[in-house]
Amino acid sequence: MWFTGARLYSLSKEKAVDLKFEDVMRLVDSGDTLILYDVKRKKKHIVSLSRQGDSFSTDKGKVLLSDIVGKEYGSKVYTHKGYEYVVLPCTLHDFIMFKLERHTQIVYPKDSAYIAMRLDVKPGDTVLECGVGSGAMTAVFARLVGDNGKVVGYEKREEFASLAISNLEKMGLSSRVEVKLKDAGSGFDEKDVDAVFLDVKEPWLYVRHAFLSLKAGGMLGVVVPTTNQCVEVLKELNSAMFVDVEVCEILLRKFKTVPERFRPQDRMSAHTAYLLFARKLPGG
Amino acid sequence: MWFTGARLYSLSKEKAVDLKFEDVMRLVDSGDTLILYDVKRKKKHIVSLSRQGDSFSTDKGKVLLSDIVGKEYGSKVYTHKGYEYVVLPCTLHDFIMFKLERHTQIVYPKDSAYIAMRLDVKPGDTVLECGVGSGAMTAVFARLVGDNGKVVGYEKREEFASLAISNLEKMGLSSRVEVKLKDAGSGFDEKDVDAVFLDVKEPWLYVRHAFLSLKAGGMLGVVVPTTNQCVEVLKELNSAMFVDVEVCEILLRKFKTVPERFRPQDRMSAHTAYLLFARKLPGG
Amino acid sequence: MWFTGARLYSLSKEKAVDLKFEDVMRLVDSGDTLILYDVKRKKKHIVSLSRQGDSFSTDKGKVLLSDIVGKEYGSKVYTHKGYEYVVLPCTLHDFIMFKLERHTQIVYPKDSAYIAMRLDVKPGDTVLECGVGSGAMTAVFARLVGDNGKVVGYEKREEFASLAISNLEKMGLSSRVEVKLKDAGSGFDEKDVDAVFLDVKEPWLYVRHAFLSLKAGGMLGVVVPTTNQCVEVLKELNSAMFVDVEVCEILLRKFKTVPERFRPQDRMSAHTAYLLFARKLPGG
Amino acid sequence: MWFTGARLYSLSKEKAVDLKFEDVMRLVDSGDTLILYDVKRKKKHIVSLSRQGDSFSTDKGKVLLSDIVGKEYGSKVYTHKGYEYVVLPCTLHDFIMFKLERHTQIVYPKDSAYIAMRLDVKPGDTVLECGVGSGAMTAVFARLVGDNGKVVGYEKREEFASLAISNLEKMGLSSRVEVKLKDAGSGFDEKDVDAVFLDVKEPWLYVRHAFLSLKAGGMLGVVVPTTNQCVEVLKELNSAMFVDVEVCEILLRKFKTVPERFRPQDRMSAHTAYLLFARKLPGG
Repeated sequence: MWFTGARLYSLSKEKAVDLKFEDVMRLVDSGDTLILYDVKRKKKHIVSLSRQGDSFSTDKGKVLLSDIVGKEYGSKVYTHKGYEYVVLPCTLHDFIMFKLERHTQIVYPKDSAYIAMRLDVKPGDTVLECGVGSGAMTAVFARLVGDNGKVVGYEKREEFASLAISNLEKMGLSSRVEVKLKDAGSGFDEKDVDAVFLDVKEPWLYVRHAFLSLKAGGMLGVVVPTTNQCVEVLKELNSAMFVDVEVCEILLRKFKTVPERFRPQDRMSAHTAYLLFARKLPGG
Repeated sequence: MWFTGARLYSLSKEKAVDLKFEDVMRLVDSGDTLILYDVKRKKKHIVSLSRQGDSFSTDKGKVLLSDIVGKEYGSKVYTHKGYEYVVLPCTLHDFIMFKLERHTQIVYPKDSAYIAMRLDVKPGDTVLECGVGSGAMTAVFARLVGDNGKVVGYEKREEFASLAISNLEKMGLSSRVEVKLKDAGSGFDEKDVDAVFLDVKEPWLYVRHAFLSLKAGGMLGVVVPTTNQCVEVLKELNSAMFVDVEVCEILLRKFKTVPERFRPQDRMSAHTAYLLFARKLPGG
Repeated sequence: MWFTGARLYSLSKEKAVDLKFEDVMRLVDSGDTLILYDVKRKKKHIVSLSRQGDSFSTDKGKVLLSDIVGKEYGSKVYTHKGYEYVVLPCTLHDFIMFKLERHTQIVYPKDSAYIAMRLDVKPGDTVLECGVGSGAMTAVFARLVGDNGKVVGYEKREEFASLAISNLEKMGLSSRVEVKLKDAGSGFDEKDVDAVFLDVKEPWLYVRHAFLSLKAGGMLGVVVPTTNQCVEVLKELNSAMFVDVEVCEILLRKFKTVPERFRPQDRMSAHTAYLLFARKLPGG
Repeated sequence: MWFTGARLYSLSKEKAVDLKFEDVMRLVDSGDTLILYDVKRKKKHIVSLSRQGDSFSTDKGKVLLSDIVGKEYGSKVYTHKGYEYVVLPCTLHDFIMFKLERHTQIVYPKDSAYIAMRLDVKPGDTVLECGVGSGAMTAVFARLVGDNGKVVGYEKREEFASLAISNLEKMGLSSRVEVKLKDAGSGFDEKDVDAVFLDVKEPWLYVRHAFLSLKAGGMLGVVVPTTNQCVEVLKELNSAMFVDVEVCEILLRKFKTVPERFRPQDRMSAHTAYLLFARKLPGG
């Protein structure tokens, strides 16, 4: 097979180890969250195996988890009535949109993808998040920082902290995240972090704390639903030593997929949040 | 300092090595692309040190590169006339928007961030890109796959292949990318890849090739500027064994940052591209 | 009363006659469509008196129509249980959005207002409409052309023609409209009209007919839901002697009205139709 | 010819007079604003004859106005060098977008068409406008109210009042408009008007005045560029007896007109204004 050969040939020994590890990942693990795809009805069920007991019930019968674990992704499995499903990997987007348990407004992928890009989050980074909520944004950060990075989240409500950790566990991301059960009102413990993200009701109260914790040139991101909050954050950013201040909103418009009648869908989300970004200028 | 202590304490020895490596990164390297921030005029110059010769010229005088290399990020440097700049890290977003040399229409961050999210690109992944162009999307993939992942790009025009590699080098990402100077008209060499991205004029000609190269459940992404192209791609996706087909467009609207007169900017980009996504159902 | 005095003073005798007619209009007529506004619950009921029988029933009791007709707009009326409503005029926007009976997709006010503006419809004009449907666009044209103008509508399905006339009657606009129960496939009877509007499935088949019926410089408007239809209409417009061809879409985004939390509503209509406009260049 | 016959047959004698008047209008009058269309280069010149002196100069030579006046619309005229133009009527949209002289931010057609619709402006209405500016919105109202309606505009700066009147004259609309050179800070003189429109810096100061001048159920419209202003207006509307309060923004997105590559244009206007609407509930 080209893939293994070529890569093993060109990569260092250390990386080859990673590659093997990745190959192992392609077999279903008992902790995975995955898709059972119903080919006939073009429908997907997202299943977190670790929370599922012995079997997963559908209207076409039960699938035994022992029939899934250890199989290769792409395999077929059958209910006790013989109905067929295909086992597929669950993307982070699938998880956030269709499976993540939420007790709060979450940061949606259209926003979280852009936030992560603007905060320049990459493998190895340390990211501070204030207001973890259900953990949707946390999961995106945790995915991107990789095994050598870290997300430190502040959350003052225990209910949300637990929920976020539970969601992160389902995607195998909890080991990269530390959730601190407290308000960051008196400042963050961490210093010299790569990025800070604020998702709280009064983010302007945390802007100076964020400044103190960021590395030189580090990016601050803030998400708020209302224009009144934008105004307050902007006042604070302008009075602190943040530069490159930017505010935006992102609109995602989906289209119907019938090629003969190509057109946008009838309805769309009109608003999730305003996004604010700024860069720490050291010496402020 | 909390950061070093706490992390070294909780992380494995192997990861600690990475951490040290990261710390070293915070000193300016002769290959870095960075920002010289003009505090007085709130303006940034993005400089790729390796392409710059001995000095960087501004209207306030020259900055000697030897004054920058080896300094900590966040340091001040001065022109020969004594004008002050602050050395800041250049984010990938900065680079793509303000520095990347382009001979083609590029995939903009509002789109590339979402594309990477939808294609579920993560540390360790192998991503196929067909139509590398100036390398803006390639850079995003390369950033996200980390040192253990890989981007394989097909580009039939040598001019673009060279340009993309040059751009990737400036961001220190070229080691993760292999650019193949050929058309993928007869198929991709790679199999079982995590994601395929098509950015060519007639992407419908490559949909079946993408199918053959994807792992089970792997995501295909396509970017096209016109609705006519969307129609052609949709026809092909519907006839192949792709499921979860989705088409969307992303609109980014920026706001003015004066808190007393908070309002959107006057003009915006109205269109860059339509984005299409689909998931490989094995057995098609 | 200031109004009558000042105006009668400055206006010609002929206009004064109109003014009296208008004043009479301010008393509720038995043919009016009006609003019964429920002040306590901030809710409006739209009532077409001519279709209502003797009374209008609410969950708070019945209002006798004889208690409404002849009253001034702004008066209070009461149900037999003593619940209070205020009689207010019904705007054309109210009628189209909340009262117009529809068996078809209608042209919504965000679009119809702009269409009428682009087609330069004004008092005294003659407008041709092909595909009357439920009559929502017809009503807008009829309103604008005034008593000296005319709307001629072609509708091949009797069901829709009747429905449109019924809707127009409720707003007192039917006398300005002639609906022809036939397809315009072999051309329109009218010549030298001020504007033509096409709202049919295959509008490209009627573009040349529209050209022949328009005055020099007259405007053509077309509404279609899909991009495929836009493509076909554009081909036809480009091959005919139409100039100033323009295609657009209009997005209306509503905001929540709580001043302390000013923000867009969560959901919006993402698409109704593409609008095409073109101007007849005579001699084509 | 159908048109003349059928209409004269069915309409009253009085209306027939109007029709003749309209026919006369189709000949170019010395006061008209019209289009000289350059067929070869697909370009339009908008010319206000009354402001033009004896001739109109193009890069292809001069057109004598005496060659235009009295001609039928649709006729050809020639420069002294023999270059051909076609005489076409100028729509109100053409005038506002390409010819109206402006010293202020104007209300654009995408907004003004919808505003007029929401304010239910129709032939015979009386509309109050506070803050006439360059007269773009005034022109739309004046067009719609017809010869039997009236627009009363308040404008405290003489420069703008003169400019607006000059613009209205060019479109033959000034006879329907009375501009009062004063601030409406102590209230409007008019009572029982059909609609009030506020386009001033601090519209919340005029909301109560508007209430007093509106008829029962009459519509108020407000246009402001910033969210901060929206907040202030909303506070005032909520404390007054206005109901059916609505805030929105309208986005107009244009498309390229090449059928083989159908797609939106690259850039668009991202913001002109927020529109606020409310209905007077009498007795407040």
